[in-house]
Amino acid sequence: MPQQISFIGLGKMGEPIARNLLKAGYDLRVYNRSTEKAEALVAEGAQRAEVPFEAVEPGGVVFTMLSNDVAVKEVVAGEHGFLHRLGHEGVHVSLSTISPETSRELARLHAEYGSQYVASPVFGRPDAAAARKLWLCVSGPEEAKARVRPFLEAIGQGSFDYGEDSGAANVVKLCGNFMIASAQEAMAEALTLAEKNGLQREQVMDMFAQTLFACGIYQNYGKMIAQQRYEPVGFQMELALKDLNLALDTADQVRVPMPLASLMHNRLLTGVAKGRGGMDWTALAKGVAEDAGLDKEQE
Amino acid sequence: MPQQISFIGLGKMGEPIARNLLKAGYDLRVYNRSTEKAEALVAEGAQRAEVPFEAVEPGGVVFTMLSNDVAVKEVVAGEHGFLHRLGHEGVHVSLSTISPETSRELARLHAEYGSQYVASPVFGRPDAAAARKLWLCVSGPEEAKARVRPFLEAIGQGSFDYGEDSGAANVVKLCGNFMIASAQEAMAEALTLAEKNGLQREQVMDMFAQTLFACGIYQNYGKMIAQQRYEPVGFQMELALKDLNLALDTADQVRVPMPLASLMHNRLLTGVAKGRGGMDWTALAKGVAEDAGLDKEQE
Amino acid sequence: MPQQISFIGLGKMGEPIARNLLKAGYDLRVYNRSTEKAEALVAEGAQRAEVPFEAVEPGGVVFTMLSNDVAVKEVVAGEHGFLHRLGHEGVHVSLSTISPETSRELARLHAEYGSQYVASPVFGRPDAAAARKLWLCVSGPEEAKARVRPFLEAIGQGSFDYGEDSGAANVVKLCGNFMIASAQEAMAEALTLAEKNGLQREQVMDMFAQTLFACGIYQNYGKMIAQQRYEPVGFQMELALKDLNLALDTADQVRVPMPLASLMHNRLLTGVAKGRGGMDWTALAKGVAEDAGLDKEQE
Amino acid sequence: MPQQISFIGLGKMGEPIARNLLKAGYDLRVYNRSTEKAEALVAEGAQRAEVPFEAVEPGGVVFTMLSNDVAVKEVVAGEHGFLHRLGHEGVHVSLSTISPETSRELARLHAEYGSQYVASPVFGRPDAAAARKLWLCVSGPEEAKARVRPFLEAIGQGSFDYGEDSGAANVVKLCGNFMIASAQEAMAEALTLAEKNGLQREQVMDMFAQTLFACGIYQNYGKMIAQQRYEPVGFQMELALKDLNLALDTADQVRVPMPLASLMHNRLLTGVAKGRGGMDWTALAKGVAEDAGLDKEQE
Repeated sequence: MPQQISFIGLGKMGEPIARNLLKAGYDLRVYNRSTEKAEALVAEGAQRAEVPFEAVEPGGVVFTMLSNDVAVKEVVAGEHGFLHRLGHEGVHVSLSTISPETSRELARLHAEYGSQYVASPVFGRPDAAAARKLWLCVSGPEEAKARVRPFLEAIGQGSFDYGEDSGAANVVKLCGNFMIASAQEAMAEALTLAEKNGLQREQVMDMFAQTLFACGIYQNYGKMIAQQRYEPVGFQMELALKDLNLALDTADQVRVPMPLASLMHNRLLTGVAKGRGGMDWTALAKGVAEDAGLDKEQE
Repeated sequence: MPQQISFIGLGKMGEPIARNLLKAGYDLRVYNRSTEKAEALVAEGAQRAEVPFEAVEPGGVVFTMLSNDVAVKEVVAGEHGFLHRLGHEGVHVSLSTISPETSRELARLHAEYGSQYVASPVFGRPDAAAARKLWLCVSGPEEAKARVRPFLEAIGQGSFDYGEDSGAANVVKLCGNFMIASAQEAMAEALTLAEKNGLQREQVMDMFAQTLFACGIYQNYGKMIAQQRYEPVGFQMELALKDLNLALDTADQVRVPMPLASLMHNRLLTGVAKGRGGMDWTALAKGVAEDAGLDKEQE
Repeated sequence: MPQQISFIGLGKMGEPIARNLLKAGYDLRVYNRSTEKAEALVAEGAQRAEVPFEAVEPGGVVFTMLSNDVAVKEVVAGEHGFLHRLGHEGVHVSLSTISPETSRELARLHAEYGSQYVASPVFGRPDAAAARKLWLCVSGPEEAKARVRPFLEAIGQGSFDYGEDSGAANVVKLCGNFMIASAQEAMAEALTLAEKNGLQREQVMDMFAQTLFACGIYQNYGKMIAQQRYEPVGFQMELALKDLNLALDTADQVRVPMPLASLMHNRLLTGVAKGRGGMDWTALAKGVAEDAGLDKEQE
Repeated sequence: MPQQISFIGLGKMGEPIARNLLKAGYDLRVYNRSTEKAEALVAEGAQRAEVPFEAVEPGGVVFTMLSNDVAVKEVVAGEHGFLHRLGHEGVHVSLSTISPETSRELARLHAEYGSQYVASPVFGRPDAAAARKLWLCVSGPEEAKARVRPFLEAIGQGSFDYGEDSGAANVVKLCGNFMIASAQEAMAEALTLAEKNGLQREQVMDMFAQTLFACGIYQNYGKMIAQQRYEPVGFQMELALKDLNLALDTADQVRVPMPLASLMHNRLLTGVAKGRGGMDWTALAKGVAEDAGLDKEQE
């Protein structure tokens, strides 16, 4: 009989990840706040729960992939949360991008109930999730990490272990999203400078993407920014803003000034204030162009 | 009889590039302000000129690799400059990182004397220069570019053509140095955040260098910044500051606000103000650490 | 019989304000977490309560002057909070610099218990508090504001009414502290530029303080920054950092990018990271000097 | 017979200043590139010169008020410049906002010809110039400053002496314009935060202008920014941008990072890129509003 596991949160990222667990042969029980998002997976064999705690088996393994700290706390410890049901020997694998502080708090909470919390935020956009090409950062109790390793192998191309501090993996994830945003800003400013000097944005970007910056972030985001096509929406600007806020809050707590993170925060906040919160975060490049007096007609 | 070419400026970058031209079988005449830097090349077969114009053959090809706009203008049109001697059908290949404006001005000046100017700034540190691993950005008159192509192949692993505007290649070069500096800042801020959260800088950097940012800039500079070892000095901080100033000046002329370039300018200027102008530019990461209350003992 | 009022929080600002209420002839009941701070006032006629709720009379007026949002919430609604005791017709005058959001939340909470909440943050340093020279920003229910007006007249030189939204006065207070911090940065950068050009900092500042900027903030803070004497400690840097964070959080909620506030946040955070959290906030000018390679010997 | 003096540059500032010299009883000879600007003054008794050197008497006193460094150098040492004519014992009073470096260079140049150079940049808008309410910063040789004092008294309400370094007064002027720009940014950000919290911009500004910031800059510019009326055009945004560039260049030379000046540079550059170079510099507040998603309809 296949092993049963649970998955909560079937958004852009959650759904393809859950599907890979299903494809790997696990008996999957899923929960999502808006039920229609579960339908495709149910058609493929998953069972649907009505509330979070129903999705979870005592002593089992539950994955969550939600949009922010509050949502994760709610499914764990809210009215219909699974905390008391997961109970002894259960493991919660938290894939969401949340603050290290929330992870540490959740780890303590699980410990009180005899269960374990593993932070395992992921890098990759929805297409990478579908293709099992995610990279995972993992931290939490050794035993729990060992137990969930086969599941993680089913959803990503590799994982990196940052020890037992449950917040550690979240720190790395926030570092990464900050670095990606910064790379986008650098490309956007450079290409706008080139454009206003009469060069072709794509011709400039192509060179960098083949030479100094021959890596995924610069190649993929670089192409979108060079072409000024901010689609498909892989990661919404308002979520990127949330992540920059998490990074800045975390930095504040340990007293690390991050002026570049502040700059990116303001760039994204400007985009959201202008009504672009639902656009892909590469659309931060629109702000760079606008400040240079370009791009108005493209709204 | 081997073709004769000239090379002016035998600094950290100029010397290995000139050597590769010598190795490629060209008859090389060199000039450097401080003569002892020419000695090794002379021992390997180059001839040394006493002043710039002596190094140049009428109608020949001359390379320059100097530290700033003023120095290039001086060897071209200063008291002992080669401009009038290079004369009809000569080509000047300008490898230095200078402003697009200066390149355009020099192009006009050469045209007045019947010679041609090709901008060909390079990407790569001294070890890459020695290993013929430089990337070149080229712009200028088609005919001149065609003529110098074999030489460029002798010194780099590839070149990118940005058309006939002699300033274009310089714009791309300034974009590149700005992007590299920005990537360093992003890494330094991220790793400082990680460090003050109890993580190992190298363990965090390794992950990014293997996954999202698996490219030279992040791998090589990332290692230096993670280890906080700012050696060897491949590119001095004061030269990096100069380049950021060139980028900002160029951006001003075409009205492109570049807040990230301003941030990098201030980061580098702080380093130079603190006496680090001669250190490798990766030492900008020291400023990030200091602002977080770290790194004092390492001075 | 004199009217009885209550005062909670006898720090640098609270104590002189409470004293002015005592001097104005009110029967004052006070509470402070560390009891020794109440001693001077008790010697002058105040009564000391052991816990917050003991300090408060049902239907009375209670002032609070505390260091942050959490502390205010605690004395209102914590274990020994006064909320249930203040009860029907009571008024809470909140002098602290807290977030508009917290004020709005507290206003709702008081309304549930039949009491009223008036936000009344103050501008002025401890010496201004002692001299009844504070400026007050007031917002909240009209009736409550009318009732407490005589008290406010006893502690300040004037008040400004921002309507019934209890958060409004806090917004103005956050705006003010941000503007003061920004003025300090501007002075610090300007005077450092002047100094490194061979001018006398004080001679430059004097001119501005007599002409364009002939107002308290530039005259008083300007003198401290020109002389590089960051004493007495009127307002601690770590509290200033807290206020900038409140401003930025408030700005985030309504989608207002404030790059200058971000810059000031980072400047103050750098100071706190370097161990200057307990110094006067004018010491942010040390950071400006350090970045210019000055000031090391003065640590 | 009245003393003859010369005045070159009759723009928004130059004309009212020249008029005050005329009113003070001096025999005024004027020059302006576009001759129609001289007509009013000629009607009031001034004589008009065809080229700069014609305006100047050997050994006399000449004022210049021009828009940038290049223009000042041109009237001094260009084809029709007055340098050789001013000659022995002449004094040049330079009222323009130019770089300290240019002032020092001009001082050397004058010394070579036996004349003297006094830097005397002014603070005040056109209406202040007309009303003799300018503030002047003066530096240069003592003897020359003594000689021109009566003239300066005829055009301003007071002057401040910064010694013999001819560049010193220019440093102070650049500091001042930077500080004014910064104050505008602070007001614009604060008022936008207040506005999006439901407050009235003017009600907030009025309080600050009466209390903490009861000085001209905050009262006058504050009113314009609160009302979002950026008229009349007292000082064009493109000139403000020029001045910020001068400040940043000067800061670079002496190694002073000025992040707030960089921020103001970018704010002004954005305005100019958007086509607002001819608007009053208070219109930088439009950029703050736009970044918050406001103000689009007001274009």
